[in-house]
Amino acid sequence: QFADDMQEFTKFPTKTGRRSLSRSISQSSTDSYSSAASYTDSSDDEVSPREKQQTNSKGSSNFCVKNIKQAEFGRREIEIAEQDMSALISLRKRAQGEKPLAGAKIVGCTHITAQTAVLIETLCALGAQCRWSACNIYSTQNEVAAALAEAGVAVFAWKGESEDDFWWCIDRCVNVDGWQANMILDDGGDLTHWVYKKYPNVFKKIRGIVEESVTGVHRLYQLSKAGKLCVPAMNVNDSVTKQKFDNLYCCRESILDGLKRTTDVMFGGKQVVVCGYGEVGKGCCAALKALGAIVYVTEIDPICALQACMDGFRVVKLSEVIRQVDVVITCTGRDEKVVGEPWSRPRRSSHSQVGSLGGGGTSQPCVPRVFGGLLEPG
Amino acid sequence: QFADDMQEFTKFPTKTGRRSLSRSISQSSTDSYSSAASYTDSSDDEVSPREKQQTNSKGSSNFCVKNIKQAEFGRREIEIAEQDMSALISLRKRAQGEKPLAGAKIVGCTHITAQTAVLIETLCALGAQCRWSACNIYSTQNEVAAALAEAGVAVFAWKGESEDDFWWCIDRCVNVDGWQANMILDDGGDLTHWVYKKYPNVFKKIRGIVEESVTGVHRLYQLSKAGKLCVPAMNVNDSVTKQKFDNLYCCRESILDGLKRTTDVMFGGKQVVVCGYGEVGKGCCAALKALGAIVYVTEIDPICALQACMDGFRVVKLSEVIRQVDVVITCTGRDEKVVGEPWSRPRRSSHSQVGSLGGGGTSQPCVPRVFGGLLEPG
Amino acid sequence: QFADDMQEFTKFPTKTGRRSLSRSISQSSTDSYSSAASYTDSSDDEVSPREKQQTNSKGSSNFCVKNIKQAEFGRREIEIAEQDMSALISLRKRAQGEKPLAGAKIVGCTHITAQTAVLIETLCALGAQCRWSACNIYSTQNEVAAALAEAGVAVFAWKGESEDDFWWCIDRCVNVDGWQANMILDDGGDLTHWVYKKYPNVFKKIRGIVEESVTGVHRLYQLSKAGKLCVPAMNVNDSVTKQKFDNLYCCRESILDGLKRTTDVMFGGKQVVVCGYGEVGKGCCAALKALGAIVYVTEIDPICALQACMDGFRVVKLSEVIRQVDVVITCTGRDEKVVGEPWSRPRRSSHSQVGSLGGGGTSQPCVPRVFGGLLEPG
Amino acid sequence: QFADDMQEFTKFPTKTGRRSLSRSISQSSTDSYSSAASYTDSSDDEVSPREKQQTNSKGSSNFCVKNIKQAEFGRREIEIAEQDMSALISLRKRAQGEKPLAGAKIVGCTHITAQTAVLIETLCALGAQCRWSACNIYSTQNEVAAALAEAGVAVFAWKGESEDDFWWCIDRCVNVDGWQANMILDDGGDLTHWVYKKYPNVFKKIRGIVEESVTGVHRLYQLSKAGKLCVPAMNVNDSVTKQKFDNLYCCRESILDGLKRTTDVMFGGKQVVVCGYGEVGKGCCAALKALGAIVYVTEIDPICALQACMDGFRVVKLSEVIRQVDVVITCTGRDEKVVGEPWSRPRRSSHSQVGSLGGGGTSQPCVPRVFGGLLEPG
Repeated sequence: QFADDMQEFTKFPTKTGRRSLSRSISQSSTDSYSSAASYTDSSDDEVSPREKQQTNSKGSSNFCVKNIKQAEFGRREIEIAEQDMSALISLRKRAQGEKPLAGAKIVGCTHITAQTAVLIETLCALGAQCRWSACNIYSTQNEVAAALAEAGVAVFAWKGESEDDFWWCIDRCVNVDGWQANMILDDGGDLTHWVYKKYPNVFKKIRGIVEESVTGVHRLYQLSKAGKLCVPAMNVNDSVTKQKFDNLYCCRESILDGLKRTTDVMFGGKQVVVCGYGEVGKGCCAALKALGAIVYVTEIDPICALQACMDGFRVVKLSEVIRQVDVVITCTGRDEKVVGEPWSRPRRSSHSQVGSLGGGGTSQPCVPRVFGGLLEPG
Repeated sequence: QFADDMQEFTKFPTKTGRRSLSRSISQSSTDSYSSAASYTDSSDDEVSPREKQQTNSKGSSNFCVKNIKQAEFGRREIEIAEQDMSALISLRKRAQGEKPLAGAKIVGCTHITAQTAVLIETLCALGAQCRWSACNIYSTQNEVAAALAEAGVAVFAWKGESEDDFWWCIDRCVNVDGWQANMILDDGGDLTHWVYKKYPNVFKKIRGIVEESVTGVHRLYQLSKAGKLCVPAMNVNDSVTKQKFDNLYCCRESILDGLKRTTDVMFGGKQVVVCGYGEVGKGCCAALKALGAIVYVTEIDPICALQACMDGFRVVKLSEVIRQVDVVITCTGRDEKVVGEPWSRPRRSSHSQVGSLGGGGTSQPCVPRVFGGLLEPG
Repeated sequence: QFADDMQEFTKFPTKTGRRSLSRSISQSSTDSYSSAASYTDSSDDEVSPREKQQTNSKGSSNFCVKNIKQAEFGRREIEIAEQDMSALISLRKRAQGEKPLAGAKIVGCTHITAQTAVLIETLCALGAQCRWSACNIYSTQNEVAAALAEAGVAVFAWKGESEDDFWWCIDRCVNVDGWQANMILDDGGDLTHWVYKKYPNVFKKIRGIVEESVTGVHRLYQLSKAGKLCVPAMNVNDSVTKQKFDNLYCCRESILDGLKRTTDVMFGGKQVVVCGYGEVGKGCCAALKALGAIVYVTEIDPICALQACMDGFRVVKLSEVIRQVDVVITCTGRDEKVVGEPWSRPRRSSHSQVGSLGGGGTSQPCVPRVFGGLLEPG
Repeated sequence: QFADDMQEFTKFPTKTGRRSLSRSISQSSTDSYSSAASYTDSSDDEVSPREKQQTNSKGSSNFCVKNIKQAEFGRREIEIAEQDMSALISLRKRAQGEKPLAGAKIVGCTHITAQTAVLIETLCALGAQCRWSACNIYSTQNEVAAALAEAGVAVFAWKGESEDDFWWCIDRCVNVDGWQANMILDDGGDLTHWVYKKYPNVFKKIRGIVEESVTGVHRLYQLSKAGKLCVPAMNVNDSVTKQKFDNLYCCRESILDGLKRTTDVMFGGKQVVVCGYGEVGKGCCAALKALGAIVYVTEIDPICALQACMDGFRVVKLSEVIRQVDVVITCTGRDEKVVGEPWSRPRRSSHSQVGSLGGGGTSQPCVPRVFGGLLEPG
């Protein structure tokens, strides 16, 4: 029923125009799979977390995760992540005495991973109260969610949520007796809009919104243009550390990780075409070239095309190479238009793999999206 | 009880001397984890495959796998692997009419993965009868094993076998009423020794053995020196395609995949020391450097050390850098001696990660081995 | 006597403050050597071009170059350069019929190389009249100057000019009976200032100035601030093709070429510290890393420092590595401050080589400058 | 007249069959140019060194070089080279007290460069007497030759020798009153054959020959097969440091240096085909790829072809890419056969540049050879 509620008011068209009414959650909510293993894992356990009665070791049930027993493993994943997040950890050490966030009541909606867990626990260490849901129905690391729940965070998220689950989790974060959020930390804008539409009185009292995705920022700009954004909002997406680091260096690593986990093939000697040579495309190309792939680039911007050329990539039209490449990767945020309908085009063999990194427009988020075509019969 | 049987006759000491009597299976049988997920996955399903009654769609029960229902997913993984194994596929096309392997009764013991599945099914397509077990208690891809079982191969393997399971599976391959193996395809030598010790009459009639690991080849040489190898054996390990391709190019890709799946950390800016600059070390160094890691090399061979230097790596003593590096990787085959006891040494922080690629002696197999220390409290 | 003329009015202080009054020409006029060979070449021929009577094959003497007989060789160098300058060549083809530059009387002062020769000849092909001198006393390719002279361009330049020669050549371009320049194409600002100071009536009638160097742009801004720039001037230095291509990709190639020609040593295994990780530094680091050098970076900007780190370079303080490195390269434009006085510092051995790429401030021109220290006794 | 003497007895056919009788010196004697500058430099000074009367500062005239006055500059070049040749320098320090080479009378014939000068001076420091000529008519660094002459070495070599000069210089080394060589250090075999043919009595008393080139080793093997090699000879060419270091790492650097000095073009974005993927080809490909060139490889050996593929190069037939590439580089030692007659083939444009690295047969020396076609009208 929650999905139905949403349909009536989500009128924000996306740039790419492919969100139908029946798919009311933000694009980023469904466009990544954290692992191919979800195909078989999900069949192992058919009871929905919403039906389960779970309690953490302190007796609290103020959460909803897949399996609270996985908390110990998730804690170790968080500890590994902490080793690489020295800025947050020093912030904790420096400021946890003064609790500068005392009084902050934050609702959050992000990917739930070891890394975001470090962020959430830092907010708590600095004095905030947090309630958290997932911004994507597939990307939650169940063990990490369990660890957060065990540590006392009110987390509502699991891998493989339905759309109804998705909105139910968000609602559980906002709709609490005797507790009212005063800050929003969002990735994709779904939480923001849920609050805006369903709890306008809460929305008015929000002190500030932090939004980190292209899509979410776009939606906030639209709200602002319409004169309806009565709350200060911070655009994290355009920060230099996002554009020049996340997009470039993180994609350089995640493209390999993602492709390996989904396909288990080698990239030495493979022919790959990368559509788009922005920061995301640059990262993907660098990684694939370094593993011995032969990489082609398509690019319509002349400066970026010249960069690709000087970096040693043949700049081509997609049609020139589509029959010979093994993998097509779009890094433009305009996947359908750029790649067309891959399953109907003649290709060298049955195994061209089409994936997409990117969101909408000229900026690119760095969550890899893999087309259904990948494991489908060619 | 099978493990006990083995103890009495496994007298082959390994070079590294760390196989106790109670750990009678070959080192390679336990030294890799295909995924960190095994920690939690195994708890999902507590019934041993040995207890289950399973039947494939043709009514056969001549196999033992985790879950025959995963066959369809495994089949798709095999199909992806086939796309990259064009030599075997053309062999199938060229020779399956004449069935050149008709009469061959092959017992095999290898990793059970999509790639080895393509090999096994090629042997079958060429006319051989095959019975197969896993050479490693952790590395089996359960879906692939299911697909093989569904296709009619007598496969006995699952991820997370106990040592007793391990020997039970091997025995189920060899000890069959009315069928007697005449060829052995082995990886690590455990199958060969099981046949040699428990079924000497079968062993004498074997037409040939193919062995692909350093360890297994080493054991065969010892048997040969002792005058007890009455069967022709082929050393696959020393082939140029193994040494110059598997060891170099496969490690270049698998080092990243393995480290990513186990740690989920980025390598850009990390400091890594790689011990040994043979083909395996060269592959690891190239991959890590390409992702922006700062890589140091330790090497005692002057030619290899000079190569490391000319390839842009600082050649150091381990003690010079041990306090500052984030990751230690051994590619020498002599891990304990090379790295010492990492958990007792002072390190920069609690998070040095020690892993090992390599087996014994101067040649290096390319299965990554991750020390227990990785996820233990530092 | 020309140098003396200049001293009285050159009051523009440079940022680095090292231009004494007696060294009145712009810094870029003396800071590059095109080849170490100049040491011995110059001794071969002691007659100054200013003393020689030379005539090209059409009987013209309207030029002053080292040796007009070298024209044929220079022509072939220009032809090679044309192959890579397709934009200018197509412009020639497209527009030489209409002569869009008819009426333009251009005085230019740039490096005289095969590449600038293609530019000069394109201007002529489009209808302009050109008179040209060198912006640097060492960088002229004598054969190319000869080829220009043979083709009828009024060129006044040779390798190894004295300061007096330098100003004499500029003056010969401007001070012509019956011909008055109406456009200036400058690199470094010396020509512009000569016209401004010595020929104010010419200056007032100039239609426009194009200036391509950091230094020259800086001087124009100062003139403009003082309210004395009565002529439109175009800043070529800040164009994206200069910043993102010249500075990055050209330095990636010229750093190797320059170091090879001056030192003839290999870079595999060498330790190099690069000061500054802007576009110039990025290009240098990439090239040296690719040849197997171990590269350290010093950088005070946190974003650039993080980029260096993610690109696989250890970010250090100069003092940490100065004793162990073989080469020091400054890419900051602030060489003295950054590197100190290299000849007085203790170093690993007598052979640290200190060179500098860069001009002044935060932007970097890409002309390599090699300190005298290079071939001096350590 | 010396060239005529040679013609009568040089009967050794080369593999490639392109040495005519009139071109009697070894192939390696003419196949490299140390710099394009030779075109114009040679015209500066028309007096042959053989006509000049020169004396070093100690009054000796026992040498013949271009210009003894260049000695100081050459000495500094030698000092730079010494910094990178620590093995020879430590040998000097360790052994110069005992003079282990006392009594050795060595005639040598190699390239005369700063690096070989360090070798020659080390031999002298260890007690040997040396007389030296150049193995190549173009490669001598005149300043270095001058420095050797100034230091007392009997050196006979200059850049731009005629064939007659070439043999005259060799003869001056061997044919000395009151001095008889007892060791030969040769590169190409010309000296060895001159002694063998013209001074058989000297040849018989030679204690040993060291030969470092493919061609020279080939000629020695032929002499040996014919039963005429009465002297022990050492094949330096096949040492691991030559094959795995010189051929790979030195070519990685020299290919860029050579192409830059001859063409002065950028390689970013250029398309290059490299014929042959042995050690020399691997070095060239790595360097060009690193500078952003798009590199294709032709290779007939399947293992090397597969390596090229896994290293990220498209393996092609030459005819597939000849029309689109900018540069053709042969690294096979069989240039004519591999590349055909470049000047008669249709090409993309007039500017394909054909060069060759390599000598004869399956091994490859690493001296770059640039076809005349380079600067010829296409």
